[in-house]
Amino acid sequence: MRLIAGCQITYEVNAPTPLIFMLRPRSGLGQWVMREEYIIEPSAQVIEYTDSYGNLCQRMVAPPGSFQVQTTAEVDTADKIDTQPGAPYVLVQDLPESTLQFLLPSRYCQADCLGNLANEIAGNAAPGYDQVEAIRSWIQQNIEYRYGTSDASTSAVDTAEQKVGVCRDFTHLGIALSRSLNIPARMVVGYLYELDPMDLHAWFEAFVGGRWYTFDATQKEPRGNRIAIAYGRDAADVALVTQFGAVQLKNMKVWVDKANT
Amino acid sequence: MRLIAGCQITYEVNAPTPLIFMLRPRSGLGQWVMREEYIIEPSAQVIEYTDSYGNLCQRMVAPPGSFQVQTTAEVDTADKIDTQPGAPYVLVQDLPESTLQFLLPSRYCQADCLGNLANEIAGNAAPGYDQVEAIRSWIQQNIEYRYGTSDASTSAVDTAEQKVGVCRDFTHLGIALSRSLNIPARMVVGYLYELDPMDLHAWFEAFVGGRWYTFDATQKEPRGNRIAIAYGRDAADVALVTQFGAVQLKNMKVWVDKANT
Amino acid sequence: MRLIAGCQITYEVNAPTPLIFMLRPRSGLGQWVMREEYIIEPSAQVIEYTDSYGNLCQRMVAPPGSFQVQTTAEVDTADKIDTQPGAPYVLVQDLPESTLQFLLPSRYCQADCLGNLANEIAGNAAPGYDQVEAIRSWIQQNIEYRYGTSDASTSAVDTAEQKVGVCRDFTHLGIALSRSLNIPARMVVGYLYELDPMDLHAWFEAFVGGRWYTFDATQKEPRGNRIAIAYGRDAADVALVTQFGAVQLKNMKVWVDKANT
Amino acid sequence: MRLIAGCQITYEVNAPTPLIFMLRPRSGLGQWVMREEYIIEPSAQVIEYTDSYGNLCQRMVAPPGSFQVQTTAEVDTADKIDTQPGAPYVLVQDLPESTLQFLLPSRYCQADCLGNLANEIAGNAAPGYDQVEAIRSWIQQNIEYRYGTSDASTSAVDTAEQKVGVCRDFTHLGIALSRSLNIPARMVVGYLYELDPMDLHAWFEAFVGGRWYTFDATQKEPRGNRIAIAYGRDAADVALVTQFGAVQLKNMKVWVDKANT
Repeated sequence: MRLIAGCQITYEVNAPTPLIFMLRPRSGLGQWVMREEYIIEPSAQVIEYTDSYGNLCQRMVAPPGSFQVQTTAEVDTADKIDTQPGAPYVLVQDLPESTLQFLLPSRYCQADCLGNLANEIAGNAAPGYDQVEAIRSWIQQNIEYRYGTSDASTSAVDTAEQKVGVCRDFTHLGIALSRSLNIPARMVVGYLYELDPMDLHAWFEAFVGGRWYTFDATQKEPRGNRIAIAYGRDAADVALVTQFGAVQLKNMKVWVDKANT
Repeated sequence: MRLIAGCQITYEVNAPTPLIFMLRPRSGLGQWVMREEYIIEPSAQVIEYTDSYGNLCQRMVAPPGSFQVQTTAEVDTADKIDTQPGAPYVLVQDLPESTLQFLLPSRYCQADCLGNLANEIAGNAAPGYDQVEAIRSWIQQNIEYRYGTSDASTSAVDTAEQKVGVCRDFTHLGIALSRSLNIPARMVVGYLYELDPMDLHAWFEAFVGGRWYTFDATQKEPRGNRIAIAYGRDAADVALVTQFGAVQLKNMKVWVDKANT
Repeated sequence: MRLIAGCQITYEVNAPTPLIFMLRPRSGLGQWVMREEYIIEPSAQVIEYTDSYGNLCQRMVAPPGSFQVQTTAEVDTADKIDTQPGAPYVLVQDLPESTLQFLLPSRYCQADCLGNLANEIAGNAAPGYDQVEAIRSWIQQNIEYRYGTSDASTSAVDTAEQKVGVCRDFTHLGIALSRSLNIPARMVVGYLYELDPMDLHAWFEAFVGGRWYTFDATQKEPRGNRIAIAYGRDAADVALVTQFGAVQLKNMKVWVDKANT
Repeated sequence: MRLIAGCQITYEVNAPTPLIFMLRPRSGLGQWVMREEYIIEPSAQVIEYTDSYGNLCQRMVAPPGSFQVQTTAEVDTADKIDTQPGAPYVLVQDLPESTLQFLLPSRYCQADCLGNLANEIAGNAAPGYDQVEAIRSWIQQNIEYRYGTSDASTSAVDTAEQKVGVCRDFTHLGIALSRSLNIPARMVVGYLYELDPMDLHAWFEAFVGGRWYTFDATQKEPRGNRIAIAYGRDAADVALVTQFGAVQLKNMKVWVDKANT
C-alpha cells in the first residue's frame, strides 16, 4: 500500500539552539520513497550527513522564536512483514561484520544483565527466529502497554522489572533479550499505518537466517505497512530529534494516510 | 533562489537489465532539498545505498519494455558561488584524510601525465586558490566548447591535446591539472539554472584554504544557482546512470526552473 | 620513551567458542608502533576487521582445550600528555561529524541522568577544557579507588552514587559528566607505563578547542607514556575481549617496560 | 608456510616532503600476521589512517637527507590459492554493495574500451570463474613479460596493444577485461614467495561465486604463499609509496623467506 506519512514539530526557542533531526526515510527493502518534503520555518542553514548506521541526519541551529519542522513522505510499503519461523541462528563467527555491533549492550539495552530472563523465555525455542519470536510474544503478553509509565531514561532492565511501558520500552526489552542470546538486534523508528492513537512508532529487527527480520512486541500479530525512518542500537542512536539546549516542544503531529494512486 | 529541477529518462529494455542511478541530490552547504519526487514506471524493486563518496545510489532491475525514471527536486540554492582569491594551498601533511583520495589519478583524470602543462599554466600563480583559478580560466579560454567532439572514453589527456570538448571534458582537465599540483580536486554532476541548451551539467571543486571551492571552466564568470547531485573522482564515479546490459536510451529531458515561493 | 608492552591471556575452553579480540594498537598522534607480535596457541583462523571506531578487531573461534593469546608491541610514546587549559568549548553546530556520536548516552555513560551533578562540579569553570578538567579533578578527589567494588555491569550512575570504583568506572563517570555538558567524550583502553599494580588501563578523551585531549581521573597529575589500544563510546565498545560462550579465563598477564634503544 | 617478508626503501630527500606509505599487511582470509616491524630512520611523526579500501596508510613528512623505511612481517600463508572452476557469475543486482565500485573503469583499467577483446577471449567460457580464468590464461600466453617496456603511465589499453609489460601491466589488463564482462575485479599488491627476481608483486582478484578469488596472469600455474599488502581499483590506489615532491629513490630491497617455526 502506498502511504503518505509525515510529522510536524513545533518548538519555542529562547536562544539559538543546535538540533539534529533524523527525519528522512530512505528507500530500502520493502519501502520505496517516491515523494518527500522537508520544510523548515523559518529557514535555517542545514548540513545533512550520514551517521555510522546509514541514517540521514540534518544538523541545524534553531533561531529564537517559534521554530517548526515538517516532513512528509509518500512511500510504497509492504502490506505484510516477512516472517520466517525456523530461520536458523547464525553463529557469531559467520555473522557479517556490520551486524557485530548489534550484539553489544547499549544505553537502554543492557543485554549483559538479562541472560537469565532470556533463557527462561526462549530456552525451549529453536535457536534463531523462534527464540526471537518467543521473546516478542512473551513481551506482548507480559508487559503492559500504558502511557506515562516510563520516561527518557527508562531502560530494558527497568521495563523487565516494572512490566509496563510504551513501544520504545517494549523494543528495548526485545533487543536486550535477543542480544543476550547472541542474536544481533537493532531498533527501528518509523511510521505504522493505523497505529492508534497515531504517533511515531518503534519496533526491532533481529538478524537470523542470514538477514534482518521485523519484530514488533506491541502487537499480537505484527502488521505491515511500516515506514522505517532510522536504525540504531537503541533510542540513544535513533532519537528523531536530539536537542542541545533548552527548547520547548509546543506541538507535535503525526499522520499516516493511504495515498490515492 | 529556489529552483525546481528534474530529469526524465526513458529506455527501451529488451531483457531484464540491472541499472544503478545516482539521481537524488542531498542537502549540503548552500543547497537545501525541500521537496523531492522519484517516480519509476513500471515500478521496480529498488535498493538504495550510499557509495564511498556519500552519494545515494538506487540499484534496480529494469523489466523488458519501456522503462522510465523521473526525478524532481525543489531546492534552495545559493545565488553566487563562494570565491576566495588568495586562499592558500594546504600542505599534503595537513589535508583531511577524506580529501587524500582526490589527489590520485583516475580513469579520466591522468594527473600523472599533465604536470608540465599545469606548471606552464599556473606556475606564476600563488599556491592554492589562485592556481586553480588560473587553470580554470586557461581552460575557459583555450578549450573550445563543441558538442559531438568527445565521447564516453575521452580523458583529460585527450582534451589537452584536442583542445575541444564539452562540460565533462573541461571538468576532467581542470581536475587533472589541479591534482598534478597536489591540490585535491573532485567532479560534481548536477543542475545549473539557465544553462543553455538545458542539460545536466558537470563542474569541479578544489580543496584549498581548508575547504572545497566551486570551479566551472565552461563559464567566463561561473554563476551560482547550482544543484549538486553527485560527487566523485571523475565521470566513472558519478555516472548518473550505470547500465549493465543493452538498454536503448529513447529520450532524456532535463529542466531547471525558478520555483514560485 | 620507547615502551615494550604486552599481554598474555589464557583460557580453558570447553566447546568451540567465538571470541573477538581488540589487541592491536595502531599508530597515531603521539604513538608509533614500531614492532608488534600476535601469537595464538593453538593457531586458529582469524579474520581481522576494522570496527566503526577504527579499531582493529580479530575474530576467531577458540578450539576446546587450553587457548592462549599473546600480543606485544614496541611503541614510541609521548612522555607527557598534551594539556591546554583554556581550550574553548566547541559549539555543537561546529563539531566535526565524527565526534557527534560521542555526545550520546551509552551503556555505561548515562549522560542523560547526570546533568545536575555536572553543573555542580563544573558550573564555574570556563566552557571547554576547564570544565572537563574540573570533572576529572573532582572524580580524582571524590571517588575512592578500590578493587572489587564494581563489576561488568557497573555504570556511571552507579559510580556517582557509590563513590567508589576502578579505572573503568572513573572513566565512565568522566565521560558521562562531560557529555552532559555537550562535550564529546570517548573511552580509551590501553597501557600506561609504571601503573601500579600493572594491568590494562582505561582513561578518556574529550573534544575541546578543535581536537581530542587526554584526561585520566585516576591520577593526581596524569602522566604520559601511554599506549592507546582501542577507542569507543564506553567499555561495551572497547572490550579487549568479547566472548560468545562459556570460556574460563585462567590467567592474564600484562607488562609495560622501557625498551632498550 | 610461514614467511618472513620485508622491504627496505631508501630515499635522498632535498626538502621536507610528504609521503604516504601503504606497507602494513593486515590479517585476513588465508594470511595471519604474527609479527611485524616498521622502522623509520630518522624517525618522523606518522599518522596512520585507513583508506576507503581498508588499507592501513602511513602519512609522514620525510626530513631532508637520507630517509629510510623498513618493514618486515612474519606471516602464516596458504600454500595454495583457492581455485573454483565453475563458480558462477553473480548478477549485478545480487552483488554485495562493497564490490560495485570494482565494476567501474579506473585510471589504468579502462574497462569501457576493452569489451570486444574480452568477448573474443572469454566468449565461450561459462559465465563467472571460467571467464576470468580464460582471461588470465590468455594474458599469460599472449603478453610478453619484459622489464623496461612500461612505465608509471602505462594502462591496460596500452598493454593490450603493445602485448608486453610487467606484473603490474598484466594485472591491469586482467582487471579491465574482467570488469568489461561486469565481473568485479581488484588489484592486490604484495609479496610472493620464490618470485624470481625477487620484488614486490601484483596480481588480481575477481568476485565470482559469492567471494573473491585470486588470479595471477604472470604464472602458468599461480602458486600460493602470497602476502597481500594492499587492495584497490588499480595501481593508483595501491601505490606502496605516494610521494608529493621530489625525493630520489636510492635503493629498494625486497625479501621473502621461509620462517623457522
